[in-house]
Amino acid sequence: MHNVLTLGKIAELVGGELRGDPAVEIRSVAPLSSAGPGDLTWVVDRQHAAQLSECQASAVLLRCGLENGQLSAVVCDRPELGISKVLECFMPPLPHPPVGVDPTALIADGVTLGEESAIGPRVLIQRDVAVGRRTKIHAGAVIAAETQIGDDCTIWPNVVIRERCRIGNRVVIHPNTTIGADGFGYNFDETRFRKIPHIGTVRIEDDVEIGANSCIDRGKYSETVIGRGTKIDNLVQIAHNVRIGENCCIVAHVGIAGSTELGDFVTLAGKVGVKDNIRIGNQVQAAACSCIAGDVEDGQIVLGIPAKPKSEFFREHLAVRRMPKALEDIRDLRKRIERLEAANNQETS
Amino acid sequence: MHNVLTLGKIAELVGGELRGDPAVEIRSVAPLSSAGPGDLTWVVDRQHAAQLSECQASAVLLRCGLENGQLSAVVCDRPELGISKVLECFMPPLPHPPVGVDPTALIADGVTLGEESAIGPRVLIQRDVAVGRRTKIHAGAVIAAETQIGDDCTIWPNVVIRERCRIGNRVVIHPNTTIGADGFGYNFDETRFRKIPHIGTVRIEDDVEIGANSCIDRGKYSETVIGRGTKIDNLVQIAHNVRIGENCCIVAHVGIAGSTELGDFVTLAGKVGVKDNIRIGNQVQAAACSCIAGDVEDGQIVLGIPAKPKSEFFREHLAVRRMPKALEDIRDLRKRIERLEAANNQETS
Amino acid sequence: MHNVLTLGKIAELVGGELRGDPAVEIRSVAPLSSAGPGDLTWVVDRQHAAQLSECQASAVLLRCGLENGQLSAVVCDRPELGISKVLECFMPPLPHPPVGVDPTALIADGVTLGEESAIGPRVLIQRDVAVGRRTKIHAGAVIAAETQIGDDCTIWPNVVIRERCRIGNRVVIHPNTTIGADGFGYNFDETRFRKIPHIGTVRIEDDVEIGANSCIDRGKYSETVIGRGTKIDNLVQIAHNVRIGENCCIVAHVGIAGSTELGDFVTLAGKVGVKDNIRIGNQVQAAACSCIAGDVEDGQIVLGIPAKPKSEFFREHLAVRRMPKALEDIRDLRKRIERLEAANNQETS
Repeated sequence: MHNVLTLGKIAELVGGELRGDPAVEIRSVAPLSSAGPGDLTWVVDRQHAAQLSECQASAVLLRCGLENGQLSAVVCDRPELGISKVLECFMPPLPHPPVGVDPTALIADGVTLGEESAIGPRVLIQRDVAVGRRTKIHAGAVIAAETQIGDDCTIWPNVVIRERCRIGNRVVIHPNTTIGADGFGYNFDETRFRKIPHIGTVRIEDDVEIGANSCIDRGKYSETVIGRGTKIDNLVQIAHNVRIGENCCIVAHVGIAGSTELGDFVTLAGKVGVKDNIRIGNQVQAAACSCIAGDVEDGQIVLGIPAKPKSEFFREHLAVRRMPKALEDIRDLRKRIERLEAANNQETS
Repeated sequence: MHNVLTLGKIAELVGGELRGDPAVEIRSVAPLSSAGPGDLTWVVDRQHAAQLSECQASAVLLRCGLENGQLSAVVCDRPELGISKVLECFMPPLPHPPVGVDPTALIADGVTLGEESAIGPRVLIQRDVAVGRRTKIHAGAVIAAETQIGDDCTIWPNVVIRERCRIGNRVVIHPNTTIGADGFGYNFDETRFRKIPHIGTVRIEDDVEIGANSCIDRGKYSETVIGRGTKIDNLVQIAHNVRIGENCCIVAHVGIAGSTELGDFVTLAGKVGVKDNIRIGNQVQAAACSCIAGDVEDGQIVLGIPAKPKSEFFREHLAVRRMPKALEDIRDLRKRIERLEAANNQETS
Repeated sequence: MHNVLTLGKIAELVGGELRGDPAVEIRSVAPLSSAGPGDLTWVVDRQHAAQLSECQASAVLLRCGLENGQLSAVVCDRPELGISKVLECFMPPLPHPPVGVDPTALIADGVTLGEESAIGPRVLIQRDVAVGRRTKIHAGAVIAAETQIGDDCTIWPNVVIRERCRIGNRVVIHPNTTIGADGFGYNFDETRFRKIPHIGTVRIEDDVEIGANSCIDRGKYSETVIGRGTKIDNLVQIAHNVRIGENCCIVAHVGIAGSTELGDFVTLAGKVGVKDNIRIGNQVQAAACSCIAGDVEDGQIVLGIPAKPKSEFFREHLAVRRMPKALEDIRDLRKRIERLEAANNQETS
C-alpha cells in the first residue's frame, strides 16, 4: 500500500507515455465528475476529453490519440487497466486472518491444511476437508465434510459450503453465500411433495468469484458446475445441475433454473431469469430484467420477457410505442371508409 | 448408503416389473443424455424411449407401456418416484452434528432439548427455547428466546430464527436463511419514517422446507404463516403477515408483499412478485417473472406484468407480435383509401 | 411491555379524544377483518368505518370525522400512528445481548466500545473498530478492521461488515446482511477478467434500517452512501458507488447498479431494477417489477420495463389491451376497402 505515487512512477507502472511533470503527486483515483487535487482521473473517449479543461484532477490517464488539455497526463492503450493497477498500489491490506489456525477454529479429523493457509476465528471445518496453500477462510465460515478447496482462495465470513464440493484455485466467495445446499426438487406423490435426494455436488473451477448472499445448489445426481474464470455477483441463484461455462458474467439477482447450460463468455445482466433445461450458447448477452424461456444460439443479444433477439424486440417495442397513434389511425380510416361507402351507396341507389 | 444395487433389488425397491438381467449392477443415476455404464436412467414418454437405443446406461426405469429396446429395464407407473427411491439408497450420510450438545454451543436457561437432538458447534440457543426430538441444529445457527422447534427438523448452518417463532415437525431450513426479522413497515411522520413495532411472530407448519438465504418476516401484530407441506426455494422474500396455505411451491427469488394470502397448492415460479393485501386462490399457478397485482381466483394460470389469465396474456402477446405487420397494413389501407377518395373526388367533381 | 391497557390510558397515549368507556381493557391490536374481544382496531376511511358495526373488537382508533357505531373509540388525526404507539406498549423485550462483552466474543486490539454497548456471543470485532454507546451487536456478527459504528445501533446475528465502513447512529441491520463486500467490477484483459480493486468503503448515515440478507457493496475508489433515514428491505442489492439520498424506501429484491444516484424521498417498490450510472430525482416513485434504464426527473411516477412515466405507460398498456380488437378492425376495414375497390373497378371498367 502506498499513500502517494508520483506521475513518473505511474507512467512506469502502466507502461504509458508521460506528458507533463513526473513529480506530480497522486494520492487517490476519482472519476472525471468528482476528481480534485491529488486525484488521478482517466479518459477513454473524445467526448470526455473535452471536459478535462474543467477538471480539478492533478493528472489524467489518457487513451492514445486524445488531447489532455492543461493536465499532466500518462498516455496508454487502455486507461481503465492502468487505473486498476494504480488502485492496487493504493489498496490497504485486506483484513485476512493471519497464517495459521485461530484457536477458536474447529478442525475435525482428517482435515489437511495447505502451507500458509489462514483459518480464522470460529471457522468450522468438518472431517476429511482439504484446504490448499495460502487459502484464507474467514470467521464463522462452515466447510462440511470431504469438501476440497484449492490454493490461494478467499472464503469470506459466514460462508457455508456443504459436503463433497470441489472448489478450484484462486476462487473468492463473499460473505453469507451458500454453496451446495440441496436443490429445489420434489415429486408430487398423491397428496404431498416428496423430496428428491440430492446426492450430487458443486464444482467451482479456478479463478471464479462469487458475490455475497448468493446460492449455488448441489446437483441431484451429478455436479452443478461453474466454469473457470466466471464471475458471479451478489444474491444470485444457480439451481441444481446448472452448468456454466468459462468467463461468464452473472450479475446480481440473476436466477438460473435447474439443468440449464451456459456456454463461455455469456453475460447475464441484473435480474435476468433463465428457464430450466435449456441451452444458452457462447457469447450470448441478455439485458437486465430479461426472462430467457428457450434455447439461445451463440452470439445472440436478447432482451424482454420472454427474451427475444434484439432486432425483434426493438421492432415490437417500437410498434407498441406507435400503438396509441395506430388506434387513432384506425378510427380515422374507418370514418373515411364510411364516407366512401355512403357515397357509393348514394351513387348506386 | 449403498455403493452398488442390483437391478433385481431395484425392481423390489420401486415395486416394478423386471425385464432383463436381475444381476446388472447399478452404481449411480443419470439422465438419458449423459448416462453411461453403471448408471440407471429413466424414461417417462415415447419420445425419450426412442433415444434408448443410443443410451450407454446399464438399465432403465421405464413407464408402463414404453419399449426399452436393448436395455435391461424395470417397468413401473412413475419412474421419477422410483429414481428418488434409488437415489435415497445411494445417498451418502448428511454431515449432521452428532446427537448431543457440542461443547462450543451456548444453551441459555430454560431451554428444553428433545431426545436425540443434535446441537452443533457454536450454536446459540437463547432462553426458554424448546427443541424437539431428533432435531439437528447446525453450526452457527442462532435461535432466539422462546422460539419452539418441533421434532425431526434440520436447521442448517448460520440460520437465524428470531424470538417467539413456532416451527413445526420435519421442517428443513437451509443455510443463511432468516426467520422472524422485523417486517418492512413505517409510518411517515412529518419529516421522517417511524418504525412500526413488529410484535407478531412466524409460524411454520409441519413438513415445510425453506431454501438458503431466504427471509420470512414476522407479523406486525399476528403471525406470518407458512402452511403444512409448502416448499420454498432460495432467496425468497415473504413479508409480514403473509399467510401461505398448504403444499405450495414457491420458487427462487419470489417476493410476496405484506398481508397477502395464498391458498393451497399454489405454484409461484421463479422471480414472481406478488402485491400486498391480495388473495391468491387455491391451485393458482404463476409463470416465472410474473407480477401479480390483484386477487386471483382458484385454479387460474396467470402470467405477465401485471399478471393476467393465460388466454388473455397470449391473445395480447400474439397481438403485439403482429403489431409491426399491422402498422404496415394500416399504411397500405390508408393508401388504398386515398386512391378511392381521389377517384371519388374526380368522379364527383 | 404491558399486557393490558385501558382505553383511557390509550387516549392519553395517542393524544386522542375518548368516546365511550375509559375502563375498556385492550390486550392486543388487530386489523378490522380479524379483530376480536380484547383487541384494539383502527379505521382511517368511511368505507371501513361502515364495517365497524360487524367488528368484534373491544375498541377502535378512529380518524376524526368518522362514526364509530357501537364501539368505544379514541378519535385522533392519524390512527395508524396511534396504533404504532400502542404496539410499542405491548412489545415484548427484544432478545438483545446484555450490556457488556460476552466471554465468547473476540475483541481485537485497538477496539473502543461505547458505554452500555452490548456485544453478544461469538461476535468478532477486528482491530481499531469503534462501537458507539448503547449499540448492540448480536451473535456471530463480524465487524472488520477500522469500521466505525455509531450510538444506539442494532446489528442482528451473523451480519458481516467489512473493513473501514462507517455506520451512523440509530442504524439497524437485520440478520445475514453483508455490508462492504467488493463491488462487481472487472476489466476484460485479452482472455480473462481482471478484478478491479475496490479501495472505497460504505457510509451508512443516521437512522437507516437495512433488512435481512441484503448486500451493500463498497465503492471502487470512493464511498457507497445510504442517506439519513433511508429504509432498505430484505434481499436488496446496492452496488458499488451508489449514492442513495435521505428518507428513501427501497423495498425487497430491489437492485441498484453501480454509481447510480438517488435523490431524497425516493420510493422503489419490490423487485425494481435500476441501471448503472443514472440519476433518479427526488420524490420519484417506481412501481413493483419496473426496470429503470435512464435518468428520472424529480417527482416522476414511473413503471414498466423499461420504466416510463405513468401516463405514457398506461396509454401504451391500454393500447396493447385493445390490440386484439384492433387487428380485427384492420381485417374488417380491409374487406370493406376491397369491396369499395371492386365497386370502383366495376364502375370504371
